[in-house]
Amino acid sequence: MRDLSNDSKLLAINSATVKPWSLEQLVEGCARAGIAAIAPWRDIVQACGVERAGKLIRAQNLTVTCLCRGGMFPAADEAGRRAALDDNKRAVDEAVAIGAGSLVLIAGGLPKGSRDIDGARRQVRDGLAAFLDYARTVKMPLALEPLHPMYAADRACVNTMAHANDLCDELGEGLGLAVDVYHVWWDPNLRREIARAGKRIITYHVCDWLVPTKDLLLDRGMPGDGVIGLRDIRAMVEATGYDGHCDVEIFSAENWWKRDPAEVLRICLDRHRTVV
Amino acid sequence: MRDLSNDSKLLAINSATVKPWSLEQLVEGCARAGIAAIAPWRDIVQACGVERAGKLIRAQNLTVTCLCRGGMFPAADEAGRRAALDDNKRAVDEAVAIGAGSLVLIAGGLPKGSRDIDGARRQVRDGLAAFLDYARTVKMPLALEPLHPMYAADRACVNTMAHANDLCDELGEGLGLAVDVYHVWWDPNLRREIARAGKRIITYHVCDWLVPTKDLLLDRGMPGDGVIGLRDIRAMVEATGYDGHCDVEIFSAENWWKRDPAEVLRICLDRHRTVV
Repeated sequence: MRDLSNDSKLLAINSATVKPWSLEQLVEGCARAGIAAIAPWRDIVQACGVERAGKLIRAQNLTVTCLCRGGMFPAADEAGRRAALDDNKRAVDEAVAIGAGSLVLIAGGLPKGSRDIDGARRQVRDGLAAFLDYARTVKMPLALEPLHPMYAADRACVNTMAHANDLCDELGEGLGLAVDVYHVWWDPNLRREIARAGKRIITYHVCDWLVPTKDLLLDRGMPGDGVIGLRDIRAMVEATGYDGHCDVEIFSAENWWKRDPAEVLRICLDRHRTVV
Repeated sequence: MRDLSNDSKLLAINSATVKPWSLEQLVEGCARAGIAAIAPWRDIVQACGVERAGKLIRAQNLTVTCLCRGGMFPAADEAGRRAALDDNKRAVDEAVAIGAGSLVLIAGGLPKGSRDIDGARRQVRDGLAAFLDYARTVKMPLALEPLHPMYAADRACVNTMAHANDLCDELGEGLGLAVDVYHVWWDPNLRREIARAGKRIITYHVCDWLVPTKDLLLDRGMPGDGVIGLRDIRAMVEATGYDGHCDVEIFSAENWWKRDPAEVLRICLDRHRTVV
């Protein structure tokens, strides 16, 4: 297991962690803080302009671990599924333009009015298969991220590493995995499924599960402030040969998003060295 | 699959659904509404007095599907584990006194300050094994209820039917399962694991998953108001031979708990006949 106690090279800052910042501010802020990698969301890349975002990132020599995010495959009708595919193609083009290591995908939930989760899962498989044809042509790895089961209805009906691994088995080359501790820490099969994932793990995300958690979406904790066995999970991931970054991704409307983002970066770096 | 369209015999009302009511009010209210079964929580049984609760229930000839709930095995030290065992023995004695069909158990979460979910799971297994010795002597079935993974930290670190089935395999006679659609509806292995559970399913609980869900604990929906494929899951459960009740258990601080409980009962009966 890698020693991060003096590291700053393996820390990546996900833009969701410093929500108040634009891409310009994220790039400058990380450069100032000696942080060498970022994982932006599409909204701030688009707001900056995709070409300009790429230039700013290259000018600071920043690594982009991944672009967040595409996916959201299930839809109520064929037009909806086509729109999702078109949007995913734009996302992968954006990922290429900013030199991202991968495009993170989440599955999507139930189409409006549906109670058919098996059907939604079939749509995810079919949508992924169609999208992979395109992603392979531009050689952009796709990192499917299983989300916590509490998002099964409205965000992602792929909720376990086992299910994501099954999809990788079925769909083959070009599809890998994003592992975020927040979504998978509770899984009794985590050790087995991370080992099974092996080289498929493209990107690794950290934060923490707070007790109590006051909001299903926007109350994630800073690494070390919650109950996730972070070191144990990183050991499992690194045992597969993973040698990439640890991306800090914290949705936190009532705490971290209200603080000075520069201070948040300092705390991320400290926790990266001490608890991640 | 049973036809519930004219049924009232297979509906049970969990006391959490009509939170404002005491046990006395629950018993009278169900009798008035022509509902023949209840599933009380321990708090209202204790507030009524256990012996008196048993008398009231028998006087109205009500079925008690289960008593909610015991469990909560992991603790920071041996004294805590002993206290949990003692409390569970009291719970099982209460279940006997009111003629419950089973005592529902939830696993319990991480001990305070712990990040060791594997360790907590070992404590659950050991605590269950010790408690089973006692429960068998009074012939009270224990119904282990896997809870949704969003409760893994603070309420229950047994979060899937597969894990609960594994514990039943290991611990043997006297340990069965409580299946609550709210906790398991998202599970991609649900069909397989319900079939595997077979005759172990002692009690079946219904409610619904709302979109959006505003609170992790207290925002459950009335059957039919959410996205769970209720008929599909009941079909899986009944395919095992389950011929017991459908218990309606709704934690709903901002909606159903604020309504007239007698009206809530009428709606439960209507949904039992039309969507459960």
